Amino acid sequence: MTFTEKLNVAWRKSRSLVCVGLDPEMPKLPARFRERPDGVFAFHKAIVDATHDIVCAYKPQFAHHAALGAYDQLAAIIDYIHDRYPSVPVILDAKRGDMGNTAMYLAQEAFDRFKADAVTVSPYLGTDAIEPFTKYADRGTILLCRTSNPGAADLQELLIDGEPLYMKVARLAATKWNANNNVSLVVGATVPKVIADVRAVVGDMPLLVPGVGAQGGDVAASVAAGRAGNGAGLMISASRSVLYASNGDDFAHAARGAVEQMIADGASVA
Amino acid sequence: MTFTEKLNVAWRKSRSLVCVGLDPEMPKLPARFRERPDGVFAFHKAIVDATHDIVCAYKPQFAHHAALGAYDQLAAIIDYIHDRYPSVPVILDAKRGDMGNTAMYLAQEAFDRFKADAVTVSPYLGTDAIEPFTKYADRGTILLCRTSNPGAADLQELLIDGEPLYMKVARLAATKWNANNNVSLVVGATVPKVIADVRAVVGDMPLLVPGVGAQGGDVAASVAAGRAGNGAGLMISASRSVLYASNGDDFAHAARGAVEQMIADGASVA
Repeated sequence: MTFTEKLNVAWRKSRSLVCVGLDPEMPKLPARFRERPDGVFAFHKAIVDATHDIVCAYKPQFAHHAALGAYDQLAAIIDYIHDRYPSVPVILDAKRGDMGNTAMYLAQEAFDRFKADAVTVSPYLGTDAIEPFTKYADRGTILLCRTSNPGAADLQELLIDGEPLYMKVARLAATKWNANNNVSLVVGATVPKVIADVRAVVGDMPLLVPGVGAQGGDVAASVAAGRAGNGAGLMISASRSVLYASNGDDFAHAARGAVEQMIADGASVA
Repeated sequence: MTFTEKLNVAWRKSRSLVCVGLDPEMPKLPARFRERPDGVFAFHKAIVDATHDIVCAYKPQFAHHAALGAYDQLAAIIDYIHDRYPSVPVILDAKRGDMGNTAMYLAQEAFDRFKADAVTVSPYLGTDAIEPFTKYADRGTILLCRTSNPGAADLQELLIDGEPLYMKVARLAATKWNANNNVSLVVGATVPKVIADVRAVVGDMPLLVPGVGAQGGDVAASVAAGRAGNGAGLMISASRSVLYASNGDDFAHAARGAVEQMIADGASVA
């Protein structure tokens, strides 16, 4: 199955638009995981076991794992999800962006070594920096379009022929860069109109929407702005607000509760 | 010493504008290094020992090392250069670009864990994705401005108020993003006029200029276009054309010859 096919299955089975980011931060883990050498994996495993039927994707964050030297635990949680919940795609959030052989190595790392279904990539370097990823036709390449952070406006909203740069990225993603029909986009939840504008030019392309929860984006407004014609089309991503909903013994139950709340707030397949 | 101070010392001592990229590719290493567990480090050590007095910087490539699982050898070559040739700055070419805590982790990785003097960073995410790097006031943040790859034109040359996007990046780099006076820019050698245009708005800011050698950029034209008022201001970067000038027993001698040829072609401090 391709990334998009897998995502469609996940949407259909879970009826959920929620994507849970796996961003390990050691001080926030419940105490019993901080003391185990495999604590990051064990914590994420518990989160995954508690939420797998009500999410459409998981999104482990590469740099958070790298900062802990937890490469093996990153590989292990991806393997675990593939093995145990094979209909839930895994997005490696690595925000890659390099050229030539280097881009090829980064694609190999994401897809061959870590076996991710999709990876996030910056578009700043253009076509030849993107193709080493998109040529993996059965995997997804999720390009940064309009990110959810405050500084996003500095470049992404500069006007090109009267239209913001992120719209140019969206148009290229829907045409020139999408020969294998495996490109998706990151569009932050912080400005719903942005999601609507991008949706208008990309058809049913999946959009990864971070920025709800801790960053202040609104679930219902994002879904209203971005739901595709198939009733889905969105991966509304939350990390800290789910992972660290509680740091007590009820953390997994609390994580499930946080996902259920997002679904209740509107993050569901229509 | 700050990155810029160290770079100024290196320019003054070496009279060279050449920066050697350390991009390990296992099949290209001389045979005796391919069979050693520390072969990547040992190869780079030989290159560094053969060229340290005629370069202004070294630029190890993160992803090339990561693809080989050679994190320890990356740390080891940086330590070796700091220890043995302390006046030569080390640039970690990692092309980072992420937000919030993740950017902070990436900055810690580059500057605290790997002890790089400078790191390359993508500007696409804007101010808050750049500040975690620039707040290390004694280290350099080298922002991608106009890269040397063919696809660079896709976004970087789009016109904003009649001026290409990369010029907007150059202006932000020289003003808003340079509060600690530690920002530099990547400007490819492939179009000398681009280097001149960027130089015109950034004063004496150091420019890292890849794209000579294998990618076809011209050394003399790049130097003519970009030399700063202090007679230097440029790091003309070459990797494969130096590292793999020969794969015989004379590889280190051949690497030195390739650097000397770049200097003879014009990559020298005026």
